[in-house]
Amino acid sequence: MKQVVTFGEIMMRLSPPLNYRFAQAPALELTYGGGEANVAASLAGLGVPAAHVTCFPDNDLGRAATQQFQRLGVDMRHTVFRGPRLGLYFLEVGAAMRPSKVVYDRAGSAFDLLNPADFNWDEILKNAGWLHWTGITPAISAAAAQATREAIAAARRLGITVSGDVNYRRNLWQYGQRAQDVMPELAAGCDVLVCSENDADDLFGIQPKSDAENSFVSMAQQVRACFPQVKQVITTQRHTHSASHNSLSGLAYDGAGLHTTPSYELSPIVDRIGGGDAFMAGFIYGSLTYPELLRALAFGVAASALKHTIHGDINLVTVAEVEEVMKGNTSGRLLR
Amino acid sequence: MKQVVTFGEIMMRLSPPLNYRFAQAPALELTYGGGEANVAASLAGLGVPAAHVTCFPDNDLGRAATQQFQRLGVDMRHTVFRGPRLGLYFLEVGAAMRPSKVVYDRAGSAFDLLNPADFNWDEILKNAGWLHWTGITPAISAAAAQATREAIAAARRLGITVSGDVNYRRNLWQYGQRAQDVMPELAAGCDVLVCSENDADDLFGIQPKSDAENSFVSMAQQVRACFPQVKQVITTQRHTHSASHNSLSGLAYDGAGLHTTPSYELSPIVDRIGGGDAFMAGFIYGSLTYPELLRALAFGVAASALKHTIHGDINLVTVAEVEEVMKGNTSGRLLR
Amino acid sequence: MKQVVTFGEIMMRLSPPLNYRFAQAPALELTYGGGEANVAASLAGLGVPAAHVTCFPDNDLGRAATQQFQRLGVDMRHTVFRGPRLGLYFLEVGAAMRPSKVVYDRAGSAFDLLNPADFNWDEILKNAGWLHWTGITPAISAAAAQATREAIAAARRLGITVSGDVNYRRNLWQYGQRAQDVMPELAAGCDVLVCSENDADDLFGIQPKSDAENSFVSMAQQVRACFPQVKQVITTQRHTHSASHNSLSGLAYDGAGLHTTPSYELSPIVDRIGGGDAFMAGFIYGSLTYPELLRALAFGVAASALKHTIHGDINLVTVAEVEEVMKGNTSGRLLR
Amino acid sequence: MKQVVTFGEIMMRLSPPLNYRFAQAPALELTYGGGEANVAASLAGLGVPAAHVTCFPDNDLGRAATQQFQRLGVDMRHTVFRGPRLGLYFLEVGAAMRPSKVVYDRAGSAFDLLNPADFNWDEILKNAGWLHWTGITPAISAAAAQATREAIAAARRLGITVSGDVNYRRNLWQYGQRAQDVMPELAAGCDVLVCSENDADDLFGIQPKSDAENSFVSMAQQVRACFPQVKQVITTQRHTHSASHNSLSGLAYDGAGLHTTPSYELSPIVDRIGGGDAFMAGFIYGSLTYPELLRALAFGVAASALKHTIHGDINLVTVAEVEEVMKGNTSGRLLR
Amino acid sequence: MKQVVTFGEIMMRLSPPLNYRFAQAPALELTYGGGEANVAASLAGLGVPAAHVTCFPDNDLGRAATQQFQRLGVDMRHTVFRGPRLGLYFLEVGAAMRPSKVVYDRAGSAFDLLNPADFNWDEILKNAGWLHWTGITPAISAAAAQATREAIAAARRLGITVSGDVNYRRNLWQYGQRAQDVMPELAAGCDVLVCSENDADDLFGIQPKSDAENSFVSMAQQVRACFPQVKQVITTQRHTHSASHNSLSGLAYDGAGLHTTPSYELSPIVDRIGGGDAFMAGFIYGSLTYPELLRALAFGVAASALKHTIHGDINLVTVAEVEEVMKGNTSGRLLR
Amino acid sequence: MKQVVTFGEIMMRLSPPLNYRFAQAPALELTYGGGEANVAASLAGLGVPAAHVTCFPDNDLGRAATQQFQRLGVDMRHTVFRGPRLGLYFLEVGAAMRPSKVVYDRAGSAFDLLNPADFNWDEILKNAGWLHWTGITPAISAAAAQATREAIAAARRLGITVSGDVNYRRNLWQYGQRAQDVMPELAAGCDVLVCSENDADDLFGIQPKSDAENSFVSMAQQVRACFPQVKQVITTQRHTHSASHNSLSGLAYDGAGLHTTPSYELSPIVDRIGGGDAFMAGFIYGSLTYPELLRALAFGVAASALKHTIHGDINLVTVAEVEEVMKGNTSGRLLR
Repeated sequence: MKQVVTFGEIMMRLSPPLNYRFAQAPALELTYGGGEANVAASLAGLGVPAAHVTCFPDNDLGRAATQQFQRLGVDMRHTVFRGPRLGLYFLEVGAAMRPSKVVYDRAGSAFDLLNPADFNWDEILKNAGWLHWTGITPAISAAAAQATREAIAAARRLGITVSGDVNYRRNLWQYGQRAQDVMPELAAGCDVLVCSENDADDLFGIQPKSDAENSFVSMAQQVRACFPQVKQVITTQRHTHSASHNSLSGLAYDGAGLHTTPSYELSPIVDRIGGGDAFMAGFIYGSLTYPELLRALAFGVAASALKHTIHGDINLVTVAEVEEVMKGNTSGRLLR
Repeated sequence: MKQVVTFGEIMMRLSPPLNYRFAQAPALELTYGGGEANVAASLAGLGVPAAHVTCFPDNDLGRAATQQFQRLGVDMRHTVFRGPRLGLYFLEVGAAMRPSKVVYDRAGSAFDLLNPADFNWDEILKNAGWLHWTGITPAISAAAAQATREAIAAARRLGITVSGDVNYRRNLWQYGQRAQDVMPELAAGCDVLVCSENDADDLFGIQPKSDAENSFVSMAQQVRACFPQVKQVITTQRHTHSASHNSLSGLAYDGAGLHTTPSYELSPIVDRIGGGDAFMAGFIYGSLTYPELLRALAFGVAASALKHTIHGDINLVTVAEVEEVMKGNTSGRLLR
Repeated sequence: MKQVVTFGEIMMRLSPPLNYRFAQAPALELTYGGGEANVAASLAGLGVPAAHVTCFPDNDLGRAATQQFQRLGVDMRHTVFRGPRLGLYFLEVGAAMRPSKVVYDRAGSAFDLLNPADFNWDEILKNAGWLHWTGITPAISAAAAQATREAIAAARRLGITVSGDVNYRRNLWQYGQRAQDVMPELAAGCDVLVCSENDADDLFGIQPKSDAENSFVSMAQQVRACFPQVKQVITTQRHTHSASHNSLSGLAYDGAGLHTTPSYELSPIVDRIGGGDAFMAGFIYGSLTYPELLRALAFGVAASALKHTIHGDINLVTVAEVEEVMKGNTSGRLLR
Repeated sequence: MKQVVTFGEIMMRLSPPLNYRFAQAPALELTYGGGEANVAASLAGLGVPAAHVTCFPDNDLGRAATQQFQRLGVDMRHTVFRGPRLGLYFLEVGAAMRPSKVVYDRAGSAFDLLNPADFNWDEILKNAGWLHWTGITPAISAAAAQATREAIAAARRLGITVSGDVNYRRNLWQYGQRAQDVMPELAAGCDVLVCSENDADDLFGIQPKSDAENSFVSMAQQVRACFPQVKQVITTQRHTHSASHNSLSGLAYDGAGLHTTPSYELSPIVDRIGGGDAFMAGFIYGSLTYPELLRALAFGVAASALKHTIHGDINLVTVAEVEEVMKGNTSGRLLR
Repeated sequence: MKQVVTFGEIMMRLSPPLNYRFAQAPALELTYGGGEANVAASLAGLGVPAAHVTCFPDNDLGRAATQQFQRLGVDMRHTVFRGPRLGLYFLEVGAAMRPSKVVYDRAGSAFDLLNPADFNWDEILKNAGWLHWTGITPAISAAAAQATREAIAAARRLGITVSGDVNYRRNLWQYGQRAQDVMPELAAGCDVLVCSENDADDLFGIQPKSDAENSFVSMAQQVRACFPQVKQVITTQRHTHSASHNSLSGLAYDGAGLHTTPSYELSPIVDRIGGGDAFMAGFIYGSLTYPELLRALAFGVAASALKHTIHGDINLVTVAEVEEVMKGNTSGRLLR
Repeated sequence: MKQVVTFGEIMMRLSPPLNYRFAQAPALELTYGGGEANVAASLAGLGVPAAHVTCFPDNDLGRAATQQFQRLGVDMRHTVFRGPRLGLYFLEVGAAMRPSKVVYDRAGSAFDLLNPADFNWDEILKNAGWLHWTGITPAISAAAAQATREAIAAARRLGITVSGDVNYRRNLWQYGQRAQDVMPELAAGCDVLVCSENDADDLFGIQPKSDAENSFVSMAQQVRACFPQVKQVITTQRHTHSASHNSLSGLAYDGAGLHTTPSYELSPIVDRIGGGDAFMAGFIYGSLTYPELLRALAFGVAASALKHTIHGDINLVTVAEVEEVMKGNTSGRLLR
């Protein structure tokens, strides 16, 4: 199987244990994560060859982050070691009506200040069959946006499938360019787009037709019209009953019709971070494995559901475990 | 804003981690708390100047307890360091149908043996606008009851608002006087009284009229009649579905009518201790901030609901967080 | 009160903390447990004299396991120290739709390789009033099956009550004999049999009559007919909504009629391992204490419900705590 | 072998991990210990039947303390469960020039308030061959002193060997009687006395003769003359280079001459608490095993040396490990 | 007593537990420290009123850092909350021949980007008797250097004692100005200068005269000549035998002669960070307490020696504990 | 650079934290290690391409062990997943005169029962430049000995350098063949032999000539004579002052003369396990890097010295760190 290649920042994640608040913690639990790298690591765990491309400072922390992804079987050979510091984020885990909370400390990181010329995409992608990026990366800096642009261009050149999770976060876009100016070009290079109705409105000014039977379908039709390369528009729907209980289902539109999955009750939630990345990894696995879009979607949602039971950013599950959930076996009965 | 001053014992709290039972624990988690000091610390976190008055042994443990409250911004300058030992309590955290369990070890503590003459209330209260006490303190010893009496008298003299949480615990009254003899005089000095129907019956022999439309209102009317200084009678109603799931709402009566808040589902409960103290702190904050009794009550209940998601005795939340819950935003959606 | 004697393997249990997966754990929590020894330890905690008989390697790990049961008041004097290694099992705790998972590593253990001649059952049982065994033991090895056979024979000789929990686990039977050949003789020696409808079908080829009003009763009637010594057939019914939420009730048939208990909601589940052993211990306590089968059954189910709130294999509860649940007090209200 | 019986208070020991100071600790490590019970537990570990007699409150903490000693094989059947609270001590572990520090919180404990009539010494000692007490017990309260007196009297009546570790701590004697008045009578009932030159001076007014060749011998001769029942006077000599490095040797006089052991370098010290109790347990083991006083003494000192490498109050070592040190094998070479 | 005011950055300190390397740590221990704030916190612990002035981001991390120093009694009211992020440093603790290692991540911190105009030094210093700064602060940024300059100027205007620890670290000076250009003006404003011979050479081009009897005296004489306001030049001498064993002594010159302290053996070292800050705090305490320079110096060195036995940046010791070491009592004998 | 390939068992290592004894541990720290794999992991950390060949059970534990070595950059693609269980060892860490203690539980492991035919050595070694084995592997089972024999034969065939660490442990040889019969053939295939004088006597019956000037040289000369392929005989000399303090130096003989390194003081020892493996990895690195045998030896000894400061089996150090120690910089001075 050809490699799936992902590109994006990996941050050190520091979080108080259990549900402690920031000011209570005598120690912070440490792991490393990033939206795109989480996809690569999940894929490796599902048996798909995966490589992640990023930029780290050349110090003990950058090397420790590299090692974590190496451990999970991600090919990290393309890592560029250059720049001042490792990006960080602090996570406080909520409960019941108290939300979890993320404090980012990523400005001025090695990735923020990367040099696009350090990445030879034709070389990096030479064994790849799929490139995945997210809207987080072009939001970080002009350089990161440029590198994303070059990666997508190379992938198109090499005939590689491209997926993008537009994942619009208003607060992130601080470097002087507007998401609305940057993102359309990137979206246009994709075969698969993860995009909610809010994202489409915010980024592309696309709103469901007022007379549409289904607003997601209406949005997806316009997205496909706008970006002819895009074949599939997919997303998840999450209902947040509380910080400890969510429901999750998936939607996909590919021109032929709307595909929807059953909804899973996520309760109790062990760790909500990385739920979307687990969905994407599952969807890519599914797309590479199953002929039907709906099964790929269903695999993605089931994988994401399982992610919520696992500590850390990354979905440490096997294909068999996801398939069990897909079959409707959500009883959690003890395995001996 | 003028200081809110609280008076009462602070104990070392020792509890096995997670849901371990006492006999399983190789280590005990350590924090410090006390019903009245918890109110002061919560208020400090809400931005209200707060001081706590207590008595500690002059040893490393008394100093460590002082430091914890100093850390949270409570003015601890009135602490008296004298006496033999720090009071303790051991807490075992239950789950589902297994209740949490408290073992007190407070007899013979520095606070139990305090000397009322050590507290110069006119000096202590000179910058205060509000005095808060609870029924725990006069239950500890004749000396503690006497100091409470003197504090209330000074507050009345200085025209300071007084609140009392009668909080009747039968087991505590061991020193030879009856709650029924001690409490009425103290309640009589209050502007605000936290008092449930059970408390009113047990302490004041007040029972709702059998033909009353609303039993809480009937009780509150009699309390107001009995203690003319008391303007507001307030309480919370808690339904304990299990050790991990409670519901909580608030009631207040001020002569004009009954005020009730919506009920919050508390699930899962992270730490139930200090829920009532968080309510009181929220109510005091609300009273100092809002013109309407109902908003003060609602702030208190929302604050208390949040407390159940936080480890330790003290409600470590901000005004913005409580207001979010008051607005009905209890979805716990991740904040980035 | 005469001793209850149990016989079976005790394993070291190693589990990642919280809900971490095996590959994430920098440390494993350590305790010791085994189906039969868990019964003895629970009984000791309920005030019933209890002894456990087992075989350990003569090393630090065997001695540490012995000490854990000694600590809980189990008479461990009959332990045989001989053989190569201590059996182990690794437990990963699930959540929501992710099941908990057990990896056994017990082959070649001291117990697996025990010598039946090391156990002088007439001596061991001389102060006993009850012998309890489970279907795990004869599944381990021919030697373990032989020792079980001898224990039951001695108990019958001495007029001691015998209970057996048939607990059929297909994967365990690896040493060349079939459960279907070994178990009937052992079951025939029992006064009380824990046996579900699946167990009866798998082990004894007994299926409920197609026209039976109640399938459990139909099965139990056939079991009693088949094994005349068996007076009571009992079992629990567990509905697994998720790894974090189960429901539990009990069934018993004694010839006179069907006895059923109310169902308990187990949510959240702290530790599901040992739930069946806690039931058995509770049932034995109940049988020794109450004249009515239903109360014994109800005590067993209430005890098992509480076990799900307690870490580790063993039910660390008192008689008073179980009785409180039996009375329907499952509110988990804080005890001070 | 006949039982060794010890009598004294067991306290909960709470200590910050590693070298943290009291005010830094978010959790306290928990164990239970007491000078005399430590001797019993060490002896049980050395294979000597041992029982400890004490008084605990009838609550979860008293039961947890009982279980710890049961675990180590100490016969705890004579425990009296009565009284208000468990005594506690807080231990801060020093390093280099910073001393370790103990804060006692034992006043008003169940043991402090024990009723001597609860202990039927003739019954307790009926299977005993040796009674051991320390000077801590009569220092706690008049009741504890009285119980000690009665225990010694019963032992003398039954012809049992009695050892006492006079262990004078000035701060402990608070209840109104002077050590100098209480201790001589108790010492007079002993066969073996652990007594340093300082102790002899403080308690008995005995000073080495100014012209004595060896001051310890001179003291011991006077002690023997003063208390004719005393046959052996023993002690350890400790040089404290720092909190992390001590040297330790032993001295004994039995009328026939002075016996001295080599000195051990204790570096690094893992836990210094219980070093004296480990010596006493080793000496009792040695006295019951070896014909020569010097070997008993040497066993005690080697056992005590090993104790300094072990966490907690109790010396968890085997006879073989102590003998290895006695032979001079202190190289700590890895055993596989 | 008048306040001692310190000024400088406080960073979050994150370190693997024990001697683990960065890449091994599943969690990082968390505390907050900074060279100048450590001095303030130590002084508060010694009973000297102390305030610290700094700049934090207005987020949960800045508030948590504030709370830590509030807890220790430092007046934090002058904290400016503004700017992007909290500075961090990562500490890996070595052993034997493996050095401890610090990775700084402080660029772009709130303090780095502070606005000097936010600090009204005349107001801040109005109750102060002493101002302390270090060479770390002017090394961070031009703004930080400017604020230091203004603080010193205000102190001189108000007649307050000024101490400066020149603490030259070449790697820190990255913002475009040379230490050699910035530092002389700042040093010129001091009454007390902490300065080693290397510092004097690097910063001021001052070298001991080749024929000098004592090189430290020769340096100090030239420093005093160069900066007439400087009365005392002090320093510590550290010999690093290994990461676990250092020796430490102190030197001072005040025109009248050379003062030297005995050398302390620091073994084992618990935490070496903050050793110099503890010295400075001790020296300030000593200067405010004792008439003789040598006693102030000796107090500083003894305090620093104790710091090496304490976890974290800050010296959590009492005056009595330091005095004990000053008297030569370094035996670390257990205190009960 | 060509790969270094190692072959041998990897075990799960479980150890109580700090210096706790087995029976005290509520949790065991978890890592994975094995003499040969430790060499591969150390080499990868030094920048040398390294692969390890082993056999694991196809379960979560085997995969977790694989991931640990993948994390450190070891090529694990040749792992055979087959067989029943993962080998384990339990480690108790001593202090001062108390030795560390290892309890092995490796019988019946997947590696013990490996099938030599599963390893295609010509394929495995095709990119290799060096093969390393130890005497542990042929001691495990006849199959493991056979696989070792085949690996060495293939290496010889392919002209690859072979090193063997004879590492004789009498207790290990349990499967019916004698080390004296198996080892000579394996040693004969080596270019480099790690062999102490005791090993040579025990395994090959080689004793230093009684008139030899240097006994190591005499032994090495005979070994070289006996096994003509062997060019270098090397070893370390360890003096164990205590479990916490050792000294270490190295010896090598290559026909030309004796090479010796300085001795390092290892104090305090953080973790002694893997010290020999770190030496071997350092020696291989040195041999691949330096032209002189003495420098290779010195690098090995310095690397091993550093290993004693690092937790776990594996030497997590860089070339620069080892070189610093080689230069004599053992002061452990803080690096910022």
